[in-house]
Amino acid sequence: MRLFRFGAFEQEKPGVELADGTKLDVSAFGEDFNEKFFSTDGIKRLGDWLAENSGTCPQVEAGFRYGSCVARPSKIICIGMNYAKHAYESGATELPKEPIVFFKSTSALCGPNDQVIIPRNSEKTDWEVELAVIIGKRTSYVEEADALQYVAGYAVHNDYSERAFQMERGGQWVKGKSNDTFAPLGPYLVTSDEIENANSLDLWLSLNGKKIQDSNTSDMIFQVPFLISYLSQFMTLLPGDVITTGTPAGVGLGMKPQVYLKPGDIVELGIEKLGEQKQEAIAWKPVQN
Amino acid sequence: MRLFRFGAFEQEKPGVELADGTKLDVSAFGEDFNEKFFSTDGIKRLGDWLAENSGTCPQVEAGFRYGSCVARPSKIICIGMNYAKHAYESGATELPKEPIVFFKSTSALCGPNDQVIIPRNSEKTDWEVELAVIIGKRTSYVEEADALQYVAGYAVHNDYSERAFQMERGGQWVKGKSNDTFAPLGPYLVTSDEIENANSLDLWLSLNGKKIQDSNTSDMIFQVPFLISYLSQFMTLLPGDVITTGTPAGVGLGMKPQVYLKPGDIVELGIEKLGEQKQEAIAWKPVQN
Repeated sequence: MRLFRFGAFEQEKPGVELADGTKLDVSAFGEDFNEKFFSTDGIKRLGDWLAENSGTCPQVEAGFRYGSCVARPSKIICIGMNYAKHAYESGATELPKEPIVFFKSTSALCGPNDQVIIPRNSEKTDWEVELAVIIGKRTSYVEEADALQYVAGYAVHNDYSERAFQMERGGQWVKGKSNDTFAPLGPYLVTSDEIENANSLDLWLSLNGKKIQDSNTSDMIFQVPFLISYLSQFMTLLPGDVITTGTPAGVGLGMKPQVYLKPGDIVELGIEKLGEQKQEAIAWKPVQN
Repeated sequence: MRLFRFGAFEQEKPGVELADGTKLDVSAFGEDFNEKFFSTDGIKRLGDWLAENSGTCPQVEAGFRYGSCVARPSKIICIGMNYAKHAYESGATELPKEPIVFFKSTSALCGPNDQVIIPRNSEKTDWEVELAVIIGKRTSYVEEADALQYVAGYAVHNDYSERAFQMERGGQWVKGKSNDTFAPLGPYLVTSDEIENANSLDLWLSLNGKKIQDSNTSDMIFQVPFLISYLSQFMTLLPGDVITTGTPAGVGLGMKPQVYLKPGDIVELGIEKLGEQKQEAIAWKPVQN
């Protein structure tokens, strides 16, 4: 199943895209795609409900806005330097022996085609196409062999990063990962039954029409089942939680000279079987009261 | 006002402690102390409601369990090395020029007197008494002079930390800050109108009856208004969010030889005007299914 959310920011409604591309408004199901939905076997219940009720669901009207494909989760957990070439382009002299883990504020979450806001005083806003894993069931201390049972599905994520905030302002990376619009997620949560191997998907990103990231999730140093098991040693994973699995080479930080976003730039990205995103970069402006 | 939450884990009900120490069950108010409560001027509405209804609220029965004083927030933002002596005891050779920021998983949240679970494979579980600030209104890019208007109140927090997970496992600190029970918060959220100066409060922690942290929040390198303004440059702060402002000297990491928790240890801590916590350390055990 391909789940999506549509409508105005923070007022999104749930939708399902059928195999033929028809996009149904499933508001009548009465639930958002949030922690409670996933924790109560919502994907199966929604599937059963659709089998009875899809004929009465309205189609989503053309021109709609996609929201994040899941409602705000308890956490967005990010894996750093999980592709070898990207680790080296970022200045690493050796590959990580264990996953590098950091968080991104969930207030950064937005839709896949929303404009990305270059923060105030930012000069180094950068892109990172990533495979996101959405957790389906609460777990801690899960074994690698069992880990995929806890996955609801997968989505495209652009892990926007302000490199000066991240690395030149004293300490931990979360500071450069958390501004508003820095976490476009979607368009779809594709349920795990439709993805035979999450570590065998092409992923790419282009800037102003030129492809600059181009890899496959098989290149990850630490693959999805290991990451879930590993993370669950350090924190309880909750239904709806997002694990974003790192980016391949081709970010602005790694270019010579470095390249960062300026207003008007167009970022497009996608992952095989999961869909595509497109963001226009805009300058931060004070909110008018 | 002194807000608290009581009852079983993740089923807590709201309570208010009156000036004479009476503890009222305010379930009849119909709201938990969560993002929606704070964002809709809940503290004022609850005060108004209590003026009319306190006579009909039952008292909380003796022997109750305190939960976290706020429901699970969107984020727990932690400040590192914010007291000079603690920075040096942790191995820093100079003081931070800007706040060090990291996150703690909100799944670590628990009540102030719950047992703290020493994680599986942990050898370095450590304590950190900290002043927690609870945000009352959504804000980003707020000026330091206006920052305190966005505070709902203050609480005691013990920022439990597994030092090997935090610093010896490759990278970012969140890995050692996020295990279950690593964030006892409360007993009370004391509303900001009752705290004239949050940077003038004694705070202390004892291990097995011996006081080992003993300081005052005036010793913070970066004080509360600055921290709120600073953080809001990097992420939107949401109502109910917790900012925990760093710990003074006296953690196990800084002792020679280092001292870490073992099962049966008793940790007590408190902050002037905000209340006290007491945790017994226990070993991790597999959950029986």
